[in-house]
Amino acid sequence: MKALVYHGPGEKSWTDAPDPQIQNPTDILVRIDTTTICGTDLHILKGDVPAVTPGRILGHEGVGTITEVGSAVTQLAVGDNVIISCIKSCGQCSFCQQGIFAHCLGDEGASGIGWVFGHLIDGTQAEYVRVPYAETSVYKVPEGVTNQQGVLLSDILPTGFEIGVQYGQVKPGDVVAVIGAGPVGLAVIATAGLYGAARIIAVDLDANRVEQARKFGATDGVNSGDADWKEQIMALTDGWGVDVAVEAVGVPESFELCAALVRPGGRVANVGVHGKPASLHLESLWIRNVTVTTGLVDTRTTPTLLRLLAAGQLDVSSLVTHRFRMEEFLDAYDVFADPAHSGALKVLVTTD
Amino acid sequence: MKALVYHGPGEKSWTDAPDPQIQNPTDILVRIDTTTICGTDLHILKGDVPAVTPGRILGHEGVGTITEVGSAVTQLAVGDNVIISCIKSCGQCSFCQQGIFAHCLGDEGASGIGWVFGHLIDGTQAEYVRVPYAETSVYKVPEGVTNQQGVLLSDILPTGFEIGVQYGQVKPGDVVAVIGAGPVGLAVIATAGLYGAARIIAVDLDANRVEQARKFGATDGVNSGDADWKEQIMALTDGWGVDVAVEAVGVPESFELCAALVRPGGRVANVGVHGKPASLHLESLWIRNVTVTTGLVDTRTTPTLLRLLAAGQLDVSSLVTHRFRMEEFLDAYDVFADPAHSGALKVLVTTD
Amino acid sequence: MKALVYHGPGEKSWTDAPDPQIQNPTDILVRIDTTTICGTDLHILKGDVPAVTPGRILGHEGVGTITEVGSAVTQLAVGDNVIISCIKSCGQCSFCQQGIFAHCLGDEGASGIGWVFGHLIDGTQAEYVRVPYAETSVYKVPEGVTNQQGVLLSDILPTGFEIGVQYGQVKPGDVVAVIGAGPVGLAVIATAGLYGAARIIAVDLDANRVEQARKFGATDGVNSGDADWKEQIMALTDGWGVDVAVEAVGVPESFELCAALVRPGGRVANVGVHGKPASLHLESLWIRNVTVTTGLVDTRTTPTLLRLLAAGQLDVSSLVTHRFRMEEFLDAYDVFADPAHSGALKVLVTTD
Amino acid sequence: MKALVYHGPGEKSWTDAPDPQIQNPTDILVRIDTTTICGTDLHILKGDVPAVTPGRILGHEGVGTITEVGSAVTQLAVGDNVIISCIKSCGQCSFCQQGIFAHCLGDEGASGIGWVFGHLIDGTQAEYVRVPYAETSVYKVPEGVTNQQGVLLSDILPTGFEIGVQYGQVKPGDVVAVIGAGPVGLAVIATAGLYGAARIIAVDLDANRVEQARKFGATDGVNSGDADWKEQIMALTDGWGVDVAVEAVGVPESFELCAALVRPGGRVANVGVHGKPASLHLESLWIRNVTVTTGLVDTRTTPTLLRLLAAGQLDVSSLVTHRFRMEEFLDAYDVFADPAHSGALKVLVTTD
Repeated sequence: MKALVYHGPGEKSWTDAPDPQIQNPTDILVRIDTTTICGTDLHILKGDVPAVTPGRILGHEGVGTITEVGSAVTQLAVGDNVIISCIKSCGQCSFCQQGIFAHCLGDEGASGIGWVFGHLIDGTQAEYVRVPYAETSVYKVPEGVTNQQGVLLSDILPTGFEIGVQYGQVKPGDVVAVIGAGPVGLAVIATAGLYGAARIIAVDLDANRVEQARKFGATDGVNSGDADWKEQIMALTDGWGVDVAVEAVGVPESFELCAALVRPGGRVANVGVHGKPASLHLESLWIRNVTVTTGLVDTRTTPTLLRLLAAGQLDVSSLVTHRFRMEEFLDAYDVFADPAHSGALKVLVTTD
Repeated sequence: MKALVYHGPGEKSWTDAPDPQIQNPTDILVRIDTTTICGTDLHILKGDVPAVTPGRILGHEGVGTITEVGSAVTQLAVGDNVIISCIKSCGQCSFCQQGIFAHCLGDEGASGIGWVFGHLIDGTQAEYVRVPYAETSVYKVPEGVTNQQGVLLSDILPTGFEIGVQYGQVKPGDVVAVIGAGPVGLAVIATAGLYGAARIIAVDLDANRVEQARKFGATDGVNSGDADWKEQIMALTDGWGVDVAVEAVGVPESFELCAALVRPGGRVANVGVHGKPASLHLESLWIRNVTVTTGLVDTRTTPTLLRLLAAGQLDVSSLVTHRFRMEEFLDAYDVFADPAHSGALKVLVTTD
Repeated sequence: MKALVYHGPGEKSWTDAPDPQIQNPTDILVRIDTTTICGTDLHILKGDVPAVTPGRILGHEGVGTITEVGSAVTQLAVGDNVIISCIKSCGQCSFCQQGIFAHCLGDEGASGIGWVFGHLIDGTQAEYVRVPYAETSVYKVPEGVTNQQGVLLSDILPTGFEIGVQYGQVKPGDVVAVIGAGPVGLAVIATAGLYGAARIIAVDLDANRVEQARKFGATDGVNSGDADWKEQIMALTDGWGVDVAVEAVGVPESFELCAALVRPGGRVANVGVHGKPASLHLESLWIRNVTVTTGLVDTRTTPTLLRLLAAGQLDVSSLVTHRFRMEEFLDAYDVFADPAHSGALKVLVTTD
Repeated sequence: MKALVYHGPGEKSWTDAPDPQIQNPTDILVRIDTTTICGTDLHILKGDVPAVTPGRILGHEGVGTITEVGSAVTQLAVGDNVIISCIKSCGQCSFCQQGIFAHCLGDEGASGIGWVFGHLIDGTQAEYVRVPYAETSVYKVPEGVTNQQGVLLSDILPTGFEIGVQYGQVKPGDVVAVIGAGPVGLAVIATAGLYGAARIIAVDLDANRVEQARKFGATDGVNSGDADWKEQIMALTDGWGVDVAVEAVGVPESFELCAALVRPGGRVANVGVHGKPASLHLESLWIRNVTVTTGLVDTRTTPTLLRLLAAGQLDVSSLVTHRFRMEEFLDAYDVFADPAHSGALKVLVTTD
């Protein structure tokens, strides 16, 4: 088959790779119909994730058709159209039993981490992929949901919803500020209304992104390049700060600003992927009754999000800005890696 | 002043009554600008609520302007435009400390019940009303909210939201059935989206009401006069029943149907006012992991709902179908008491 | 092998039965070391549970040693000492994903019910048993926990804890009344302290049981044969009723008393197995903000209870009053069926 | 009257001060029977809290007898024996309505902070004290609770319980590590059992404190002077870390160690008072699904803790190590300030 293979920092190709095989009775094989690229893939290509070794097929998002099932698989069948979660879940370990699939102990590459595709085992940017622990790691695409919508459930929508909205404990009437209006920030914005936020403030340096965020449900936008941007945000609250600030950038500065924006009793939900520590200003925060959360997605809410998509209660079609065929995979990477010029959010790659 | 006075079962008049006076340091006086009529007022007029004695001014909903404040009132001032909650809260008793204002022990007429207006003390269907425990029982009308919207926060919107949606533990992706699409059922429907319901099914015998419910957010409607109405509801679920069934009628039959409609692990939230016991089929329910709740509103969520109204996230203007001037109060009762012909939902009575 | 076989109402024997065999790749076979009898087994023997057909091996509690594993079983091995949960969980269906194992859709005998042993498939009152969905339905007995303690985790302790204490939302400082101080009522009493109950009131007609309940953590006892027993309970509260009332008998009268005992805002948790409907007095309850729950155990909390047992934080040894060898199984039934004379709570049956 | 007066950094005296007077209708005056000293008082004396100005009477904990009530006070009477919460609560502002009394907007010295005694207004280390917002800021001492127990409810027990145990979301079966076994750490340890912790690990540099912690409910102790102390803690878990780590020291190092000790999905509850920022290692934490909380006590749980004390379910008598009469107040400070030699935990100062 053909696949997008990592050859070491800065090196990748769309090339021949061995067809995957069933290895365990709970595996399935899936022929990929639709996949996409994540910011994490760019990090890997920079060499920032040393666990990814040359020869690895990248990608952890995908929708496709089952072509083979292991001997213990009973609820899935050849021909089923399924969403592959970016997180594998064995369904049996102590973490999975608590719903913390992100830290599944099931041993695929390494124990204690649910993210294995395109990381510790071969991923979804390929014509075929092996999916371990299939019955607890994939979801059938229900009637009324397209593959294009479905692939957004592999990672980005559950990440925004679980790690931004749910960890941030958004509740009806809240004022929520989302720092960073890139794809994952927009996924937070698109799902904050599911808990009745009164105001959703999109904050970004890029005026276009701020404007675009309104399509996803942002009620207000603030350009963080403005000198008085913090005052603009405070003016949208009762003066005591936002109820929830979501960090969706991944740098210490924006995390620290989140901690400075929240009201006493407020929550900071970190969604961004960080490479450096931040300062936690305990000398002022100790007395402010603030909650800070971090997290890798569990994809626990995929069934919930599927029901909402199927019922037409969640419109995220604007997240997809570009489409490519598989043989154009390198072009897709180029477009995705240059959003300032391309305006790319999610870039789909499909077989048809 | 003029007021709507109860003279015993079947008897009422718009007549002269003594002006209210400050009685305790935490009282205020309010000149009513907008009030309305509740189904409970009709029950009282039938003689169903013996605690209401002849001579009582009716009404527990209202918005108006403060004309006098007691000596201990510091956060409210003459001239403030305020929403009067149907529930008084002393803010100090063990129930109020737990947020159960419905059972406030503060002694106004009787201890242990928060509903006193038009019940145990004179109510809001009058030119003026005395409000006890004012600082914890009224809310200033914020900019961007009209008196007409505000009066819906005295009772009906918090009742639908707290006793229907919150007690029913509606959560994102849920299928919610609301049995009874009268005013309070519509308030449930209008607020169920604040917790991300995927489907909201309006169920009523009246086809017009079912249709009308869509304006408030119902995604589906079922006429409970149809022979197969229960099957119609089940067909909107995965076959195991609804996640939440809300009883908004007040008769044993509809309560029992709610209990029969919910899935294992589901919730039945009773909002209706009942005069008779219902059967709880423990012989089948004991094994179904079902939760049943009942309740009088606490009006704890009034600040939340105000924020949502002010932010334009909650449109309930269609709840108001008729308007009258105070001197037409008896006409307002006639229209409200005959919804089958008048199509009345909430009937506003104002001074201007 | 030998097993306790049901032959129709009133008929049972300890007799030869075919050895169980692996049927599905996720099955295991277990050689029973310790089992016990549940009140439900007595109901079955009366013919109250028609789904149980003649020839069925009874029993849904047991601890034993794995003798064979199916081809898909990777985390369990021959020789492991395991607790068999009374509830099978496939770990994959929509109910299991929500933690509602009680209503697992995995198809063993019937879909939608987790209780299959000694009901829809052969049970644990036997020398060997086949366990379906093994990896999500059994728990290894950790160091520091005996088989005798472990068998209490098959059903009775999680039932008391989940359906009584957790569904009843016991919280620190609460006054909890448990109506019925039989084995499952004592399991509620023994675990209510895990959420910091201030008072735990054991209520029973049998003075010995009331007294005995103190060994399990009851702080107070009330004999429900006393004319003023309800007043005695109210005197242990602030006069407004208990926070939580747990029904652990299974008759309409005790359920209705629970509903009458709880304070406004209180909870009634039904644990008893009922054969008839009860009256739910909505005419008084509609205004009292009461929550009523029912449920079959999920055994979700088995890992939690195991940690507590292993740490010495839960002493339930007094629940076991009698022990028998397997060949004395019929004697064990006689003793268990006559607690008034035998004083039996849990009656263990072991192979050694 | 006599009072302990702050005269600037390093300067204090037990001296004459003007008797307090009722200033607002919701005030009361209390004659102090029992008071105590908090670590915060030592910080103030070092000059670390510049908001405290010379002439201020110190102290925020106390039990005493009401000698006068303001005109709006109806539920409290002269002669009542009351616990004074360290946090005033107006009961009316948006923070108080959400139970966040710590950030009460009621204006006594400054808006937005509930801690005013011995900080922004005169405190409780005196013969008499004025208490604002009395009806929502004091609690009557119930039968069965002594003044000595009661004074522990002014601050230390609710702080340990709310900010350590509740914010840390301790749940049944959890492994909890408490870093710092001083008074507030012991208050955490003493109340962690109210949510069923399986193991409570006391960690301190002082071997005596570690040992002493067992009297309060610690199941394990680790001396943080040992080279392998972190390994000792991990060995008490399943190898993945503790469920909850509570910081009760107030230095960046111990906060950072807490963050390193918790398992994926775990919680860090900061109780310590900090003067400097800590590093939050987002480069490793972003993927670990960790929650960090901070907070000033709300004293919301005082009624809960009172019920538990009155029921004999909470034994904290060992927290009091020394007693002094009021005229010996300076000696009490000396003993409290030198715990290494005196072994002091809480030092009571009483009038009799």
